[in-house]
Amino acid sequence: MLLHQRQVEQYHRDGFLVMESLLDQREVERLRESFARDCEVPGPHLVVEDDSAEVRAVYASHHRQPEFAGLVRDARVLGPVQQLLTDDVYVYQFKINAKPAFGGERWAWHQDYLAWRIADGLPAPRQVNIGVFLDDVTEFNGPVIFVPGSHRGGLVRESRKADAKSEQHLDPDDISLTPRQLAEHVDRHGMTSPKGPAGSVVFFSPEIVHGSAPNMSPFARRLLIATYNDVTNLPEAPGGQRPEYVVCRDTEPLRPLSAPFLDTLRTVTA
Amino acid sequence: MLLHQRQVEQYHRDGFLVMESLLDQREVERLRESFARDCEVPGPHLVVEDDSAEVRAVYASHHRQPEFAGLVRDARVLGPVQQLLTDDVYVYQFKINAKPAFGGERWAWHQDYLAWRIADGLPAPRQVNIGVFLDDVTEFNGPVIFVPGSHRGGLVRESRKADAKSEQHLDPDDISLTPRQLAEHVDRHGMTSPKGPAGSVVFFSPEIVHGSAPNMSPFARRLLIATYNDVTNLPEAPGGQRPEYVVCRDTEPLRPLSAPFLDTLRTVTA
Repeated sequence: MLLHQRQVEQYHRDGFLVMESLLDQREVERLRESFARDCEVPGPHLVVEDDSAEVRAVYASHHRQPEFAGLVRDARVLGPVQQLLTDDVYVYQFKINAKPAFGGERWAWHQDYLAWRIADGLPAPRQVNIGVFLDDVTEFNGPVIFVPGSHRGGLVRESRKADAKSEQHLDPDDISLTPRQLAEHVDRHGMTSPKGPAGSVVFFSPEIVHGSAPNMSPFARRLLIATYNDVTNLPEAPGGQRPEYVVCRDTEPLRPLSAPFLDTLRTVTA
Repeated sequence: MLLHQRQVEQYHRDGFLVMESLLDQREVERLRESFARDCEVPGPHLVVEDDSAEVRAVYASHHRQPEFAGLVRDARVLGPVQQLLTDDVYVYQFKINAKPAFGGERWAWHQDYLAWRIADGLPAPRQVNIGVFLDDVTEFNGPVIFVPGSHRGGLVRESRKADAKSEQHLDPDDISLTPRQLAEHVDRHGMTSPKGPAGSVVFFSPEIVHGSAPNMSPFARRLLIATYNDVTNLPEAPGGQRPEYVVCRDTEPLRPLSAPFLDTLRTVTA
């Protein structure tokens, strides 16, 4: 699947592009099952809520579950990424956030690339993120909020706060924009939050300013975020690399599958 | 101004009714000025942020500022309230919430009437609330979220939590619905949040289940909330009454002004 020129321009102008219902309901169901299965695999890649055993996030499921390994190579996803970035990309980071009902605190307004430059020594913002809705996303369940076009000015701030919460852990609060910086950007560009049915996919820039509100609804909301990086832009990590489940080591260029990912799974397991 | 029968039915069915741009821009400007003036009047009615001098809420401005005294008697507001409730009403509570940029934590899901029954011994849910937008309300600046129709079943819970945060102060957390209770209501009724330009007014039931998200925007959001009560339904306050700026003592029935509130002010001050 190739994006129209108009869509490529839209991505570069706004910093994001939404493709509604790119995956169908059956595919979403299979991804949810795969996620549930992956939540049973113990390890440091599994982040649970402090006050319960509920899973808050899982990293690198594409290394353990064939559905996700297929999805990141599916031509409907990988094709647009290659068009928007370059032919030779790999998955730099993969996570699924389960924003719990009545919670999943808000994320401060930030730019992803600053985090990766600081933590991993990523030389340039040569990434494309995808957000795959595993549940319907509404205005009430903590959608990601973008400041459209805010990626075009590059990084708004250059380093983390002096009183950062932690040296190791990267908290969006530590790299968040100041109120004045955000007000300037919002005055100029406004705010928008892509919503849509489960199976929708949003492609977004590593430099777009974004945040998200808590989930006010009584139902959890699962969102898959994968970051593709240009294979010529490998992290330099002067202070040592973060764990493999956070920063993937396999930098072989991905090649698109010749069929939708569920079909290729069926072939393999038949 | 009288509501159409259709609007009255809508209020009773949904538990709320939005009238977009009921006040014009000039009136909104005057109300904002009046609010700013009222924030300079010291006293316990003024609630400031813990960590700054910023005003978070002001009570009973209609006792100090003629614009608000006029507004609560303006026929465009009082007329619909009388239609929805009864002819003889007074203002039981009046407050203006200034939800600060990047904050104004979320309110837990609750029903107002439970709070007033507990705190003030209010015999019956014979109230109508009005919410007057003093700023544009968008999905990003912490709009009130309603569960439409949720008022029709009466109170979902009957008392405050056993481990209530405080005996005196009424925190929505202490009277909030359980996750299961809210999930049942949302499954049945969904969620909706009235949005619109400054000057819009939302009329809502004291028994509608509602909450609100934090303000994710870089701009403060001012919302006026006045509660009208039936004069035959006075609080019994067995444990003693709360202060007058919280529970107004003047229970004389209000009569609608014969002209828009700014015009009557002009007459008086001319």
